[in-house]
Amino acid sequence: MPDSRLKKYLDKKRRTVDAALRRCLPKHAALPPVVHEAMRYSVFAGGKRLRPILCLAAAELCGGTAKRVMPTACALELIHTYSLVHDDLPAMDDDDFRRGLPTSHKKFGEGNAVLAGDALLTFGFQLMAENARRGRARPAAVLDVVRTVAEAAGSRGMVGGQAADLAMSGNGKNRNGEKTPDALRKKLDYIHRNKTAALIRASLRAGALLAGASPVRLNALDAYGRSIGLAFQIVDDILDIVGDKKLLGKRGSDRDNDKLTFPALYGLEASRRMARREVRRAKNALSLFGPRARILNDLADYIVERQN
Amino acid sequence: MPDSRLKKYLDKKRRTVDAALRRCLPKHAALPPVVHEAMRYSVFAGGKRLRPILCLAAAELCGGTAKRVMPTACALELIHTYSLVHDDLPAMDDDDFRRGLPTSHKKFGEGNAVLAGDALLTFGFQLMAENARRGRARPAAVLDVVRTVAEAAGSRGMVGGQAADLAMSGNGKNRNGEKTPDALRKKLDYIHRNKTAALIRASLRAGALLAGASPVRLNALDAYGRSIGLAFQIVDDILDIVGDKKLLGKRGSDRDNDKLTFPALYGLEASRRMARREVRRAKNALSLFGPRARILNDLADYIVERQN
Repeated sequence: MPDSRLKKYLDKKRRTVDAALRRCLPKHAALPPVVHEAMRYSVFAGGKRLRPILCLAAAELCGGTAKRVMPTACALELIHTYSLVHDDLPAMDDDDFRRGLPTSHKKFGEGNAVLAGDALLTFGFQLMAENARRGRARPAAVLDVVRTVAEAAGSRGMVGGQAADLAMSGNGKNRNGEKTPDALRKKLDYIHRNKTAALIRASLRAGALLAGASPVRLNALDAYGRSIGLAFQIVDDILDIVGDKKLLGKRGSDRDNDKLTFPALYGLEASRRMARREVRRAKNALSLFGPRARILNDLADYIVERQN
Repeated sequence: MPDSRLKKYLDKKRRTVDAALRRCLPKHAALPPVVHEAMRYSVFAGGKRLRPILCLAAAELCGGTAKRVMPTACALELIHTYSLVHDDLPAMDDDDFRRGLPTSHKKFGEGNAVLAGDALLTFGFQLMAENARRGRARPAAVLDVVRTVAEAAGSRGMVGGQAADLAMSGNGKNRNGEKTPDALRKKLDYIHRNKTAALIRASLRAGALLAGASPVRLNALDAYGRSIGLAFQIVDDILDIVGDKKLLGKRGSDRDNDKLTFPALYGLEASRRMARREVRRAKNALSLFGPRARILNDLADYIVERQN
């Protein structure tokens, strides 16, 4: 449970992000209706808006304002949502439910789910580019953001992590050649750093870049992002085993897919210790900001203590 | 058949683009190998490089150089390739072959084909953003390009066209409510303008934007792009019926999928007339460039006369 100060902050920011997402997404009526409906369906299926909030918080910590980075914050949520829509596809994790609701392909059909994901990713880049409009940010900084997010989301980031994850799933069949604990650990580390942590890290970096942060501050937020991104994925793995099914909307999906996870490889207790260690590292990275980093420090704690 | 002058031009440009693509794409060995292998497989499966060449030709016509727009030219080919990989998926057009080779999902599995498409799209945006590096283009112009291409590729462009196409396929089952010829014609026009023409149009616009073209020249190239884009798709429909299967690598796919096409709705002869009319329009749009527009004029002719 986040403490009440953090809870208030998260609620407020989530509402602001939700309002901005509602404004920026194409309306239901826009042609072709089914893709736009599917885009909105998955975006408004109850996400925590963690990536946008991290982007906003990083910008604010570096002297920027939420308003000036909001298009990019929304873009990060769209890109996160696209990754969930495609990950849930029958050819990937084959999940019928997410957050208690039917997944996109169950509701709109597989072809439309592929297209809705494609459109969300594409619209994310459009929104990022629009962040330079009306003097919100310098064009060169916006281009840095586009490059940063593309790297984090692409084949050497999120997509790469998902591909490695996919290759490692399924009754250990495909684990040939990585049967030694050391090789498996290396693989798991690659998957987690890329599948989830890369975009979380890019979210913080994007906010800092748009606020014109100095290299020292940029690096600090980058280190923080790397650690909480990893902690986030470790906790995700743990919750898939011990979490409350009602709060999560699903559970046991990793085990069903025979996924390579932290608890599977290290056990629950060691996984929890690793997540806590990453949180300590994350907080240390922010020491140069002093007490102003309180929100991000609290957020790091929240990430390991969350129940969904 | 393109005349020999145009053929020489296309061959030369295609080789330059191929070399640039080879340099920019992640190497086979890069982790995760399968996604990078799948990306290269589809990119080097024998494309005509029409979109990159249009981008280069537009830039050169407006006083730019090929070198300065090459990252964007490559990006356009990657985005085109991603759209083919996803269109071929079982949940979409379900094609086993393209250009005589097994499609991505037949060769690498469905999950990897989805991911390879995602990665190609994402890398396309990364390359576009990198077009501002080493003083190649102004950051503001590059952002205009990112926005232009995202709009053309997204839910109100290429993805939208594909979604409408998908909804209209399959034994006429889903054509309820669009049974009048007028409604069908409107739908067909929407599909063709978006599915193919939008990205072709954006390719010309991108080249012109990076070369710093004046609004008058930008509009002229835009009108040209709109017309040849539409002509291109009409000819694609025609070739699916009368084309040489060996040259195309496949034929009859539209009929098998009961697609809504120009020949299906207007007949072959009327479709040919419409394609030629668009070519005339395209050439008229370029009159302000005088004889320097010769290459693009020849290209317009080639688009209706091509056999694959």
